[in-house]
Amino acid sequence: MKLITTGDLLVNGNRLNQSIASLASIGQLPNGGVKRIAYSTEDLEARNLIQQWMKELEMEIAIDAAGNIIGKYSGKNPVVSALATGSHIDTVPCGGHYDGAYGVLAGLEVVRVLKENQIKLERSIEVIVFTDEEGSMIGSKAMSGRVVKDPEYYRRPDNTNIQTCLTRVGGNWNNIIQARRHLEDISAFVELHVEQGPVLESMSKQIGVVEGIVGQRRFNITVKGVANHAGTTPMQMRCDALVAASQVVLAVNQLGNTPGQQVATVGKMEVLPNAANVVPGWVEMSLDIRDLSSLHIDSLLEQLRIHLEEIAVATNTQIRLNPCLHNEPALAEPYIQEAIALSCENLNLSYTYLPSRASHDAQELAQFTNMGMIFVPSLMGVSHDASEYTSPEQCVQGANILLQTLIQLGKIK
Amino acid sequence: MKLITTGDLLVNGNRLNQSIASLASIGQLPNGGVKRIAYSTEDLEARNLIQQWMKELEMEIAIDAAGNIIGKYSGKNPVVSALATGSHIDTVPCGGHYDGAYGVLAGLEVVRVLKENQIKLERSIEVIVFTDEEGSMIGSKAMSGRVVKDPEYYRRPDNTNIQTCLTRVGGNWNNIIQARRHLEDISAFVELHVEQGPVLESMSKQIGVVEGIVGQRRFNITVKGVANHAGTTPMQMRCDALVAASQVVLAVNQLGNTPGQQVATVGKMEVLPNAANVVPGWVEMSLDIRDLSSLHIDSLLEQLRIHLEEIAVATNTQIRLNPCLHNEPALAEPYIQEAIALSCENLNLSYTYLPSRASHDAQELAQFTNMGMIFVPSLMGVSHDASEYTSPEQCVQGANILLQTLIQLGKIK
Repeated sequence: MKLITTGDLLVNGNRLNQSIASLASIGQLPNGGVKRIAYSTEDLEARNLIQQWMKELEMEIAIDAAGNIIGKYSGKNPVVSALATGSHIDTVPCGGHYDGAYGVLAGLEVVRVLKENQIKLERSIEVIVFTDEEGSMIGSKAMSGRVVKDPEYYRRPDNTNIQTCLTRVGGNWNNIIQARRHLEDISAFVELHVEQGPVLESMSKQIGVVEGIVGQRRFNITVKGVANHAGTTPMQMRCDALVAASQVVLAVNQLGNTPGQQVATVGKMEVLPNAANVVPGWVEMSLDIRDLSSLHIDSLLEQLRIHLEEIAVATNTQIRLNPCLHNEPALAEPYIQEAIALSCENLNLSYTYLPSRASHDAQELAQFTNMGMIFVPSLMGVSHDASEYTSPEQCVQGANILLQTLIQLGKIK
Repeated sequence: MKLITTGDLLVNGNRLNQSIASLASIGQLPNGGVKRIAYSTEDLEARNLIQQWMKELEMEIAIDAAGNIIGKYSGKNPVVSALATGSHIDTVPCGGHYDGAYGVLAGLEVVRVLKENQIKLERSIEVIVFTDEEGSMIGSKAMSGRVVKDPEYYRRPDNTNIQTCLTRVGGNWNNIIQARRHLEDISAFVELHVEQGPVLESMSKQIGVVEGIVGQRRFNITVKGVANHAGTTPMQMRCDALVAASQVVLAVNQLGNTPGQQVATVGKMEVLPNAANVVPGWVEMSLDIRDLSSLHIDSLLEQLRIHLEEIAVATNTQIRLNPCLHNEPALAEPYIQEAIALSCENLNLSYTYLPSRASHDAQELAQFTNMGMIFVPSLMGVSHDASEYTSPEQCVQGANILLQTLIQLGKIK
């Protein structure tokens, strides 16, 4: 094992980008997108390819009960906890080349560089492929011990049960509790991911140092009015649920636009009876609100509740706000943020701090270990689409930051 | 033929209400409603019952090419044009006892009273049952010569073609042009109907003298924004189609609430992709706007167009207003309105003038003859529902006004 300056190490950009292209060929769609839904034939094929690459790197491979693939590149010191990186290789029904896959492949490229330079860090590095990030996040949730006990919860849209799914990928539902990990196993987890948003691009920054993954609350809002003939009911005698709902949409939008980093969205709306000649009697809609601070979300929701009451009175309707999802924020550890920022400075890459407003496996890992995330820009912020794009150069930049960050973290503190 | 004072004539209220109950028993639903869809077995049975009653009254019965049942009670003067009344006996899938049926049965009751008092007016009276008012209005449209030439236009939701439907009710699609009527045949048409709205009830008026049937314009409004991740897209970078659409709904509602008798409604809305975690990229909605004055509708639409442009600019979306229905108002003849009002005064019934904001066969008859309409109150304005209700007393009052109005109009002018 020769002694070299690890601070000078860089990934092999061509090799990284070729691996991204190779993986994207599995499940490729005619429009250039990728369909590699968790547990599908394509997912299985991709999982095999990853394991083959891990074998070529002589990594120790384990499949845990949740079907997570864990490839370990041993460190010098077998008694200290490992560093972990990785992401997922499953996609949405029409996804792109980068989301998830990029983080896994950059993790493997880090190991390739270390191995070809015959470098071992003090800590082992685990490159993890998490199961079904796009659906249930069961892989990372099994690691944090937050799997729902009822297997029916995980039944797939095609009606396959979770037992069958996990068996297919080498897991075992009955032992899922054994997939749980602890700080004693993994001292830190760093996930590299495309931003899936337009912030880095709009600020012309090369790297995003993620401050944390925003907390998310989701609600179902119902508006009860009175359905009536749209011709024969005079305006002043109506209780129009859609007029009230429209005021709610604008109130939510206004809330999102108050000072702060929050986003607030009504993405879904159903109108009943939904006929051109009937005054709407019922509207149901979603509210999605996200921020890094749970207290700030609480305060925004309090303002919204007051506004909803005013709207209900003014429109003679009944408005209900029913909670249906509550995810607490997952903050990135400051020392990992610093390591990422320092790597950017050393490599002369521009960077900014920003929250991740999308979910990632990292948020589950943050439940039991120190977490950090690195973002690279997404062209026009597009994600989960055939057209999602991060340039080869940007992919290399992000992988170099991952490499340098892991090297820093790999020194025992 | 004995001489009596026709001004004193009243209908037989019990007989009228019994006939309403008898007809409602055909197609009766468990919830008390009536399902008697045009051309169905129930519709055929009801048509037979009406013809049987016409026969008992020794009326001349004709079925025209559109399947309209025309029962004629001859007048004294065979060379003058007839008076017509009537409505329809088909219902919506879950209708009530009154809509349409009431006007037909009151017409027959008028003939019964005249006949039992051995009274003939100068003009003949035609009691007409129009085919499929709730669907295509093909019966009254055939009389006004406004049937669409392509038979496919009239294909039923159950895929039955119009030829089959008309044959079933004694009509003949190939001869539909022969159903056309003219002012020389029918000097006036008076339709008695339940209001299907809350105006009379809210004003505590017994009779509505209809000023005309409002013109109606219907549009499809599309809003094109940009669909984006609801988590990762900062508020200021969104082109949220639903935020724009909500402003459109409120603009339409505001327009409806400006001074005037107009109503303006967004009854239907579809959001795409309609997912809680996606900023809406596309919204499609209906606009329905009605008023007695076509010029007033034009002016309101002009205001709306300006408003839509402002909303599009402010929300960075594209908004299109696509016309899909344009019905001109059909005004009631002042001399018929006067005859109705005079009848109310003679019978000491309270009345008000009001527009009909729902469609009726009368609007088609207005295309070629003098038209008038009489309304009676609908409990809470409910219509097209099992719970629609007009009390027996109110039904009798309306029928008496129809009787007295026809007597006045039956004198040759």
